[in-house]
Amino acid sequence: MERRRSVYMDHAATTPTRPEVVEAMLPYFSERFGNPSSLYTLAREAKGAVEEARGRVAAAIGASPEEIFFTSGGTEADNWAVKGVAAASRKKGDHIVTSAIEHHAVLHTCRALEKQGYRVTYLPVDEFGRVDPGTVEEAITDRTVLVSVMAANNEIGTIQPVRAIAGVAHDHGVPFHTDAVQAIGAFPVDVEEMGADLLAISAHKFGGPKATGALYVRKKTRIGTFMDGGAQERGRRAGTENVPGIVGLGRAIELAVAGMPRNAARLAAMRDRLIRGSLEAIPDTRLNGHPVERLPNNVNVAFRYVEGESILLMLDALGVAASTGSACTSASLEPSHVLTACGLPHEEAHGSLRLTLGPRNTDDDVDYVLEVLPGIIGRLREMSPLREVT
Amino acid sequence: MERRRSVYMDHAATTPTRPEVVEAMLPYFSERFGNPSSLYTLAREAKGAVEEARGRVAAAIGASPEEIFFTSGGTEADNWAVKGVAAASRKKGDHIVTSAIEHHAVLHTCRALEKQGYRVTYLPVDEFGRVDPGTVEEAITDRTVLVSVMAANNEIGTIQPVRAIAGVAHDHGVPFHTDAVQAIGAFPVDVEEMGADLLAISAHKFGGPKATGALYVRKKTRIGTFMDGGAQERGRRAGTENVPGIVGLGRAIELAVAGMPRNAARLAAMRDRLIRGSLEAIPDTRLNGHPVERLPNNVNVAFRYVEGESILLMLDALGVAASTGSACTSASLEPSHVLTACGLPHEEAHGSLRLTLGPRNTDDDVDYVLEVLPGIIGRLREMSPLREVT
Repeated sequence: MERRRSVYMDHAATTPTRPEVVEAMLPYFSERFGNPSSLYTLAREAKGAVEEARGRVAAAIGASPEEIFFTSGGTEADNWAVKGVAAASRKKGDHIVTSAIEHHAVLHTCRALEKQGYRVTYLPVDEFGRVDPGTVEEAITDRTVLVSVMAANNEIGTIQPVRAIAGVAHDHGVPFHTDAVQAIGAFPVDVEEMGADLLAISAHKFGGPKATGALYVRKKTRIGTFMDGGAQERGRRAGTENVPGIVGLGRAIELAVAGMPRNAARLAAMRDRLIRGSLEAIPDTRLNGHPVERLPNNVNVAFRYVEGESILLMLDALGVAASTGSACTSASLEPSHVLTACGLPHEEAHGSLRLTLGPRNTDDDVDYVLEVLPGIIGRLREMSPLREVT
Repeated sequence: MERRRSVYMDHAATTPTRPEVVEAMLPYFSERFGNPSSLYTLAREAKGAVEEARGRVAAAIGASPEEIFFTSGGTEADNWAVKGVAAASRKKGDHIVTSAIEHHAVLHTCRALEKQGYRVTYLPVDEFGRVDPGTVEEAITDRTVLVSVMAANNEIGTIQPVRAIAGVAHDHGVPFHTDAVQAIGAFPVDVEEMGADLLAISAHKFGGPKATGALYVRKKTRIGTFMDGGAQERGRRAGTENVPGIVGLGRAIELAVAGMPRNAARLAAMRDRLIRGSLEAIPDTRLNGHPVERLPNNVNVAFRYVEGESILLMLDALGVAASTGSACTSASLEPSHVLTACGLPHEEAHGSLRLTLGPRNTDDDVDYVLEVLPGIIGRLREMSPLREVT
């Protein structure tokens, strides 16, 4: 264990921006810096770059360019989708169906709407984190205005049967939103095949820059504005366009989708080795999430008798960057809402470790983690007060 | 006129990101790319950079770091300020006081709130675009929850008596928001001296990157969340932090404020030469906005009998980038709401040209514009159908 390496295995939290992407963005900071809404040559260059990126994003998910709206990231896309549809449908109804394991960008948005008088059904999931489309059918009422279920979970990697869920929603004339933040670059994302009417994207999850995302909005979907102001994005999302970021998003999604088949297979092999190696080498350990319907880069394992944060600190000391769950709530002492929804007792939820792989990871990285992890868990268990209780 | 130059005089629309700022941002894309919410070393580096930038922004406007919240730009900051205060104060009241010449990020946000049942008073302005603090006094009722008046206007450059307006608001226990998007780097902006309880900032207006901004929120100001989700920004603004953008904002505001006294004096001299030169050389011409209480970089002149867009096209052909007013509404055929609020008849509002200067502009640029402008206006007037009417 004397080797000091640097192993980043938290790609679900964020990814390094790919050098080709930074390269593509750079000219738009100080040279082609025009405001796309202006009318002169410099502005038209910027406008052209934005529209080219819009075409790339659309092509990547099987949409039309005019259905793509750029946002400040996945959180804004989710906020806009849920609040925007809710506001535009207030006369029709006041009920939203979502799952208990959505990202907080959807869950907390739903909580905010509840305070405004909307009603929300939080669908349960099975032990693997899957939503049963039958529960969607049962939850929908004639007051339901939106069904929102994520394409794949950010903590446990479980992939949802979104096509079946979308089918149920559409049978009742209800639009379907999916948070596809973790899905892009991991498996094929096509709005037609998924039956998505709205779909949220975040560039920094697949080699693009932070704070750039997009919301896909199917033609004729009723949605209010979220960001009010100038006439950007055809009057539907105000604010000067993030030209470098949008250019970066366009390049990153193109690279992520083109490289997906090979990359996903490579990551899945490393993932499976990490899962098998951990479960075999360390007793009282279980896999969180679905064994098969799972993101190719996601490992999430519960170690009994230990605290997840202690694992992270010891891994960090050995050069490994990992997570207990969502980065967005790492400051919180609450156990993961995802793991508890899957039925894990609090103490196991607290002892969970998420490793999420990326293109830069190697077999050596996997070897290294498998080499250091048993020792870390062993030492923590020796010190653990939890152990004595059981 | 045979010289072909490249003269950018639309700095109110956007500015090139300063090379030092891009330099500061670059490491945070692909190297120090951690998610600030995570717990390992790479993440702590990113978190440290965000907090350092927060300190710089706070220092620049006389605030405390914990009063600075990063946003995706000025539009989000204005949306959040107005909608957030309105939502948090719904039990107290439902009335907002603003001016008729605010940026659309405030005006359209107020329109959206009107649809939700709020009432909004749009204060008139005098012929120079100034709000009379006495009208604020008259407008405030016991249902008023917010007064929002911009620090300086983006189209005509008029600087508002915000301190007096804030004083009136505070006399009635009403919080005061100011859109300071055009003010940073143009004149001293200090939240104490201004009496601002909320203040919106946009990096790309002063040499920072697009799509990064901040909202100052004075301690104890009641404000709801706008972007719901993760626990970022102490639970008040969800979404993975735009680390490179935030670093860029911190560097840019420091440079802008440090360079302000010298830069403002230099720009004001060029501004005054442009104004005097235009008014002297071209008949039937008037200055829009205030002759003295005016942004140091803003020229806005109305030419009778001509269309502003035609001026822009001819200027662009000669290498000059300019505007008729706000870039955010350039696609619209409506005359400027700012100019009409100042009492300009529609035909003069349509014939207005905005030139906004920046640090790269030179006296040669001013000479060039003064050389080409009379010919452009002369030719357009020869062709003008408006001329025959008069």
